[in-house]
Amino acid sequence: MDFYFDFLSPYSYLAFQWLKKNKSLLESLNIEVNYLPTILSKLIHSYETKGPAEIKSKREYLFKDCVRYSVLNDIPFNTPKTLPFNSLYALRLVLASEPSKRFDLIDAIFTKGWGRGGEIGTEESLIELLQELGIDESLMEKTTSKEIRIELKGVLKEAISKGVFGLPTFIYKEELFWGNDSTKYLELFIANKDPLDQNKYNNFLKNHPFN
Amino acid sequence: MDFYFDFLSPYSYLAFQWLKKNKSLLESLNIEVNYLPTILSKLIHSYETKGPAEIKSKREYLFKDCVRYSVLNDIPFNTPKTLPFNSLYALRLVLASEPSKRFDLIDAIFTKGWGRGGEIGTEESLIELLQELGIDESLMEKTTSKEIRIELKGVLKEAISKGVFGLPTFIYKEELFWGNDSTKYLELFIANKDPLDQNKYNNFLKNHPFN
Repeated sequence: MDFYFDFLSPYSYLAFQWLKKNKSLLESLNIEVNYLPTILSKLIHSYETKGPAEIKSKREYLFKDCVRYSVLNDIPFNTPKTLPFNSLYALRLVLASEPSKRFDLIDAIFTKGWGRGGEIGTEESLIELLQELGIDESLMEKTTSKEIRIELKGVLKEAISKGVFGLPTFIYKEELFWGNDSTKYLELFIANKDPLDQNKYNNFLKNHPFN
Repeated sequence: MDFYFDFLSPYSYLAFQWLKKNKSLLESLNIEVNYLPTILSKLIHSYETKGPAEIKSKREYLFKDCVRYSVLNDIPFNTPKTLPFNSLYALRLVLASEPSKRFDLIDAIFTKGWGRGGEIGTEESLIELLQELGIDESLMEKTTSKEIRIELKGVLKEAISKGVFGLPTFIYKEELFWGNDSTKYLELFIANKDPLDQNKYNNFLKNHPFN
């Protein structure tokens, strides 16, 4: 299962809590998660549209929406110390770390930022975090390498080619689920209980080509 | 309570089903609903952004999302015969009808279009609908009046001034709820059980001015 996310996106944080809560379930089903750090602003602007944070009343509304969801689901929710912040260092750091260690690293970054309201936008703040986690801080040096930059761009390009239009997005068995709210449908899809009848849908597309 | 909607928006149709289901409850609480037909494209473009239907993969995904929601909530869901269609005639028709008759008229238009997959974009299709409803079809003539055109623009202008950025939007006691999904929070808000602590939120705004 692919998980496209950006640390800048509060809904990515909330969707990651779903992954965290369902970690054992996914492992028992042999569903491996690929954590794919994606630059949200570049993704959105590739469609020549605006991100939710770029419209004042929408930004305020969605922030309230996140608070409501987190209260009802017992998820700590704060805003990172600096907002908006540059998430590029943290995104690169994920790619620099070994795949098997990415879950814990992402968890630590999200928890520090959106969970506890700490700083996650600067190199210093991330080096501090690596120290707390007992990870060799030389990992941070790798983030400036050409390979990591190319890899980050590659993730973005692949996301767009797969039809990803916003974050967070899950892709499982080629089916795309966008947004934290979609985890309720993703759960049903994984359990082979998708309320969408794909045959009916394909027939619909034939009769109503809205492309 | 204000309800901003467009017949072009499938989520407006789904949110209207919430209003329909909760009609008695709202009446028992003396909550009067103002049905405010709004031109979606003009609303969205006033923010210089794109509507969800203007990005192919987003349009397809959201359509599936509507199907999933309607299956799980036992709501008939089809697409109007012509899609996209010109919803201007239907929007004006709502304003031309007496306020007390708007609920039934909106219900009939939504049901014909998104419920049964009929045509609701042409004058002829709406005249037919009026005949079926036993409403004098001269109502259709009123829709071309200068007053109605001005009123429709006025609704749009007011929506923007209140921070409405998408459809459907409910505004109740100055609190804005966007999208069909937000009805779950609107229900809590009406029951004085809003998970958002407004005092905490206002304090947050003071400390993290993200405007």
